[in-house]
Amino acid sequence: MQLTRAADYAVRMMIHLATLPQGSRTNRAALATAAGMPEPFVGKILQTLTKSGLIESQRGMNGGFALASSPEKVSILDVVEAVEGPTALNLCVKRGATCDRKAWCPAHPVWCEAQDAMTAVLRRATLASLAHAREEEPQWISL
Amino acid sequence: MQLTRAADYAVRMMIHLATLPQGSRTNRAALATAAGMPEPFVGKILQTLTKSGLIESQRGMNGGFALASSPEKVSILDVVEAVEGPTALNLCVKRGATCDRKAWCPAHPVWCEAQDAMTAVLRRATLASLAHAREEEPQWISL
Repeated sequence: MQLTRAADYAVRMMIHLATLPQGSRTNRAALATAAGMPEPFVGKILQTLTKSGLIESQRGMNGGFALASSPEKVSILDVVEAVEGPTALNLCVKRGATCDRKAWCPAHPVWCEAQDAMTAVLRRATLASLAHAREEEPQWISL
Repeated sequence: MQLTRAADYAVRMMIHLATLPQGSRTNRAALATAAGMPEPFVGKILQTLTKSGLIESQRGMNGGFALASSPEKVSILDVVEAVEGPTALNLCVKRGATCDRKAWCPAHPVWCEAQDAMTAVLRRATLASLAHAREEEPQWISL
């Protein structure tokens, strides 16, 4: 029941992108440094985030990566699910016939409630609010 | 970010044990059937739950497995953590120097809050309350 390293790094990268001045772009090396992650790993995550429509990339002299939407509109849950797929704390929480005990198992509503409680927190946390918290941090170092 | 199958099965087994009349014991085959799990897998989970003090086993004619404590005193979180270890939604939520960004990363408090929200639900759900829900279910079949 632990977040993948890829999702953790993706969240770090997205928060960093949200701290950049509007209209600016950054490159892979800067993102790797900002997210504290190995550079070869960055490419795969950037590809996933681009495919899911969360970031956009532009080639050329003034190219680089930027958020595709306003940081107010993107939550930590959006980023996690772009990397990990829809959240499912347990098999039975997934839609459809994922567990034949679903209709009567007394644990099933508990898993659903636990997941809802967790995802509500991640849904409330927008990139904008976290980037703002980052900027207010006195130890902030420009990367 | 998904529960292990072992933890899911352990919860099913513990709820079943909580539905048994006080003082009675059951065997491995009955637990496998009740939890809808492969019998060879049962032994390992029973061992884990016994080691963690959640169940007790007795050999002999009237032997078998039973809860070690009152089902009111055991939560779903207790069972999950007996199998998976302490919950840690992300590396940084673990105590100690598990992430060097912990002191300033704006995502860190979000992971902590999300984990707290989830574990609060799992902590509230006792085996007694779930066994009760199971007994009230009209489709209940004695196993």
